[in-house]
Formats: sequence, C-alpha cells, structure tokens
Amino acid sequence: MSAASLYVVGLGPGDAACLTPQAREALGRARCLAGYQLYLDLVPPELLAGKRLIATGMRREEERCVAAVEAARAGQCAALVCSGDPGVYALAGLALEVLETRNLLDDVPFQVVPGVPAVCAAAALLGAPLTHDFACVSLSDLLTPWRVIEKRLAAAFEADFVCVLYNPRSRGRPHLLGRALSLARARRRPDCPVGLVRKAFRPGQEVTVHTLADFEETRADMLSLLIVGSSHSRIAGGRMLTPRGYILGRS
Amino acid sequence: MSAASLYVVGLGPGDAACLTPQAREALGRARCLAGYQLYLDLVPPELLAGKRLIATGMRREEERCVAAVEAARAGQCAALVCSGDPGVYALAGLALEVLETRNLLDDVPFQVVPGVPAVCAAAALLGAPLTHDFACVSLSDLLTPWRVIEKRLAAAFEADFVCVLYNPRSRGRPHLLGRALSLARARRRPDCPVGLVRKAFRPGQEVTVHTLADFEETRADMLSLLIVGSSHSRIAGGRMLTPRGYILGRS
Repeated sequence: MSAASLYVVGLGPGDAACLTPQAREALGRARCLAGYQLYLDLVPPELLAGKRLIATGMRREEERCVAAVEAARAGQCAALVCSGDPGVYALAGLALEVLETRNLLDDVPFQVVPGVPAVCAAAALLGAPLTHDFACVSLSDLLTPWRVIEKRLAAAFEADFVCVLYNPRSRGRPHLLGRALSLARARRRPDCPVGLVRKAFRPGQEVTVHTLADFEETRADMLSLLIVGSSHSRIAGGRMLTPRGYILGRS
Repeated sequence: MSAASLYVVGLGPGDAACLTPQAREALGRARCLAGYQLYLDLVPPELLAGKRLIATGMRREEERCVAAVEAARAGQCAALVCSGDPGVYALAGLALEVLETRNLLDDVPFQVVPGVPAVCAAAALLGAPLTHDFACVSLSDLLTPWRVIEKRLAAAFEADFVCVLYNPRSRGRPHLLGRALSLARARRRPDCPVGLVRKAFRPGQEVTVHTLADFEETRADMLSLLIVGSSHSRIAGGRMLTPRGYILGRS
C-alpha cells in the first residue's frame, strides 16, 4: 500500500492483548490517527508517539472521517481508529461514503483492518451465548427511526434469533431498552437468560447473567452490551449457553 | 488460571497477522491442542512444536471437545482451536455442554478467547457491508431443521437486516442456497449487492461483489461467506456499502 493510504482500524475491545498484529502494524504505519478520544485512549502509547492526533467528540463522526480523508489526500498515511470491529456500528461505512462524495474512491487507497467486535468479546466472557444464529440491533435512534428498530427486534425475537443489543441505554432515551425487553418478554420464557457485559477486557469490566424476568434495565448503559438468548439458551454453571444442537454421546 | 485449564481459542480468519496476542498466549500455554485438522494447520508452527495434537475430522466435534476436556481434567492445559471466533458457529458452546454433562463446570477452569470472526474478516475485505443491523444465519441443516433456517432468513430479509450466510453451499445440499436467495429476491431489489468472500486472509483469497440478479450460486462453497445487503446497501467504487444513515455535510 502507498504512503498516502486511509486505514480504518479495529482495536478490538480495548486491551492491547486483543489488538491484532495487523491492526498494530497499520497504526504504526499511520502518521495521523483520528478517532473519538475514548478510542484513542485505548491505543498503546508507543503507537501514538510523534503522530498527529485528531480527537473529535461524540457525534462528530463525519468530522473525524473528513479529517482522516484530507490527511490521506495530502499524502499522509492516516488511520481512523474504532473500538471493536470497524465494520460493526463503526466508521468503515462513513469513511467510504466520504471518499465517494469527494470522488476519491480511485485516488486514496482504502483498507479496513478488522478487529474483535464487542459482540464476540462479550460472548466470550459470558460463556457461549451465540453459538447459533444471532442478530445484532442497535437501540440508538439517532440515525434510525424507532419503528425500524422495533420491527427488527420483533422479527428477530419472533424468529428465535439470539439478539445482541448494542447501545442499549443512553441517558437521552433510557426508555427504549424497556420497550425492547417488552418485545422479548412477549416471545421468550421468563427464565430466558440475558447476559450483560460492561467494559469488556477493560478496567472495571462487569459480566453478569440474568433472566428476562429479573433483569433490571437500569444496570445497562452505553458502555454495555446486552445479549438476550433464543428459546434454547440456558444458564450452565453461571454462564450463558446456547446449544448448537448436537446430541451428546451419539458419536 | 491454573495449569489444568480448558481454553477455547479463536484464531481469527487464519493469517497469523490476525491472531490476537491473547490467543497466541493461550495457545502457547496449552500442552494439548485439539481441533479440526484444517484449523490446526492455521496455527503458527512454533505454537505446535512439542505439543500433543488431537486432530479429528469434520463432524467429529464432540470427540474433539471430549478429548480436550479429558486432557484438562487429567491436569494438562488444553486448548480447543477454532477458526474465526469460538463463539460463532464454533466450539465454545459444545465445550461448555461437555463440561456440564460431566459435572466438571466447577472443576475445570474454562476460558473462551475471542477472535476476529469470519463475518468481520469478510466485511473488511468487501468494504463496509454491515455497518448497520445485521443477522447471521447458517445454511447448514445438519443440526437445525430447514424450516427453522427458512423462518429466520425470511424474518431477517423482511425486517431489512443485512444478512450474513454462513456455510452457504455444501456438496451434500447445494440447493439450499438457491432457496435462501429466492427468499432474498422476493424482498430486495435486483441490484441489491451480494458480497462473496472465500478464504479471507488466507492463500487463495477471493473477494467479489455481485448483485442479487446476477449472482451465480455455484460460486459459493463451504469456505465462502456470503453477505446480502439491506435495502439501503449499494456498490461504491466496486465495494459493498451499507450507510449508517448519516446525512453528509450536515456537520
């Protein structure tokens, strides 16, 4: 890849032990790193030293992307830094849109470097809640009308997907999680497990397993990820388990 | 963690550049590695040297898990090796079930080490096909009745999820992909993008972007992953893009 490239890099959940060598190399090569301050704080310090850093606040995603694109166009290798995976509710899409809008798709080499997404980090800590078919839904209605979110949630619960709730409870719209859980409660047993992971693989990590009946939604916030089981999910030794369907002892 | 532990480790898509330091450390600590031969072949050779290796064939998943559990119970640190992430259509669940069936949940320390899942590896190579809500469905009907798979596909397409198809086309049931695509074609425009990634980040990697109208299902096999866009997905500069919904230029 030429010097003037744009990388969109996934840090994984946050701990340097979860950062892939590929992501580390891209961050090392970049001369300019752009990202939400909380994510730049997760970059190992030796990869920040001597770099141009562009930290923009929450909801300033386009500004971040434009700054990185401008740097790459000006001949600098730039990286947009995301937590988790850059393709899951992160900046890979917006970066591509900014390149497209500015007719730079053919001029700026663009590479997405995948990372361990929050859903896999949370699942690992909970046990094995996914294993089978699952759906990821963000409860943020900033960019998506609630009726679309609600339709997806209802469809996913109805078709018995394990449901992963991103951005479960913001201060601005704390009531949406209650609505989402009502949709689940109408379609799952009260003892259906609900896993909550907060700050996975970061200081202050919290991992708890609940049931739909006893889960208190005030436990969740925007640093949490919630996994609601399918009708086959259960709790095993304090962990959350969705069997794949093997009949044990048959082989 | 004590010496006698059971790890379920995600290698990521295959290239050592995608292996997290955490996974490398767990593989280094293990004295016994169990896995499908194709996955053991992806482990860096220096992590295999001097270890007890248990390679079982396809569909011998329980045997693999039992062997690893027995090794851990006998006092050896054991690792079950999965490609991608161990919680996504892999062995984290079955390992937990084997521990549960043998009443070993309290006796054998158990840890899932997440990896970059195939869906994120494929998405990174395609551009930004996920970005928004998505559902993962395996087309393998070995452990799940086709009517359940069909219900999930229909629900996911209907609710406008980006749909990720795992195990899209086996030699034993090549016709299932056609049925899945029919469900998509009934609910998406003909120009809806379809991304196909084969052997992501491995020798022989293939990445192609099609439309629902022109996609030829014989291109897919069990080493492929297929991503069918939502109604908002489109092709941008040969890449697949699902916008998150930002209105560009507003900020």
